[in-house]
Amino acid sequence: MARTGRRPGNTRSREQILRAAREQFSELGYDGVSIRGIARGAGVDPALVHHFFGAKDAVFVAAMRLPYNPGEVLRGIVADSGHDRAEAVVRFFLGVWEDPGTREPMLAFVRSAVTNERAAEAVRGFTQDVITRHVAAEVGISPLRASLVAAQLFGMVLVRYLAAAEPLASAPPEEVVATYAPAVRTVLGEARE
Amino acid sequence: MARTGRRPGNTRSREQILRAAREQFSELGYDGVSIRGIARGAGVDPALVHHFFGAKDAVFVAAMRLPYNPGEVLRGIVADSGHDRAEAVVRFFLGVWEDPGTREPMLAFVRSAVTNERAAEAVRGFTQDVITRHVAAEVGISPLRASLVAAQLFGMVLVRYLAAAEPLASAPPEEVVATYAPAVRTVLGEARE
Repeated sequence: MARTGRRPGNTRSREQILRAAREQFSELGYDGVSIRGIARGAGVDPALVHHFFGAKDAVFVAAMRLPYNPGEVLRGIVADSGHDRAEAVVRFFLGVWEDPGTREPMLAFVRSAVTNERAAEAVRGFTQDVITRHVAAEVGISPLRASLVAAQLFGMVLVRYLAAAEPLASAPPEEVVATYAPAVRTVLGEARE
Repeated sequence: MARTGRRPGNTRSREQILRAAREQFSELGYDGVSIRGIARGAGVDPALVHHFFGAKDAVFVAAMRLPYNPGEVLRGIVADSGHDRAEAVVRFFLGVWEDPGTREPMLAFVRSAVTNERAAEAVRGFTQDVITRHVAAEVGISPLRASLVAAQLFGMVLVRYLAAAEPLASAPPEEVVATYAPAVRTVLGEARE
């Protein structure tokens, strides 16, 4: 299918797909949703959903208005082999939460996951999908190690940005990277080059 | 002051103190509360608050019905020098959350902190107090390292018990200890003996 850009019909279809996706993710959880089901809900062809967004995790990212797709970011970090992956991943997470433009949608996402059982179910399924498909498979570590890296990153966000507990809340980002990256590297099972 | 045990008057005073403490922590945040203020709110002598509970963090633990005092637990782990501290701390946190009797009050505590701004403020102050007073001072690491250990432990709880994301949610506790303790040890700055 050719990319047809910003024609009004496409904008409408895109919005219909995102609306159907939002409804279905929050009603059925992540695992209960399929591209086919979203297409049916939006009254479009499944190929159009794929054309606009790609795989299910990317539809989720767009529907939940997440500022980035963790799977894509990790692919980029893994592909760039010339640097320290542990440092890159800690620095990326800090960057997302340091910038108010990306922090606010992330905060809204986290709050909904904690206060709403169905949203929590969707986040759980999405996290599992990203951890087992992207991180474990593409980084080449066990799914358990991948989920413990996620635990380290989410924990840092929790203490620094959500709880805003000192001294982590005010520590300079590069000091956090220098102190925390070695622990992320330990879980990744990498030696420092 | 002599310990007078279970005399009815003491039970009443104890309950009055806890009620005053709960009110004040949720109204004023952790930093805004003093033993003196709690005593005034409960209509008792400050020495009685100290007699029943000890320091402010212990009053907070009792008032919030936490199943354990993280400061005391850490003192115990640090005092017992014959074992691996990183493993002990990961194993302890898993134990608290594996046991439904301690998991439920912890869950209630975490939920209130996320959904209620004032409760969040109290948790923030308490966490800072425990991190800077107990962990950093008694374990002998920098407050930044102490707060990053807290981030690792909270993150593990978040992914395994709150989000219940696989494969971490179902991994055997000893496998989690074996995989995660080396990363906690990295932040503690300890070599494996």
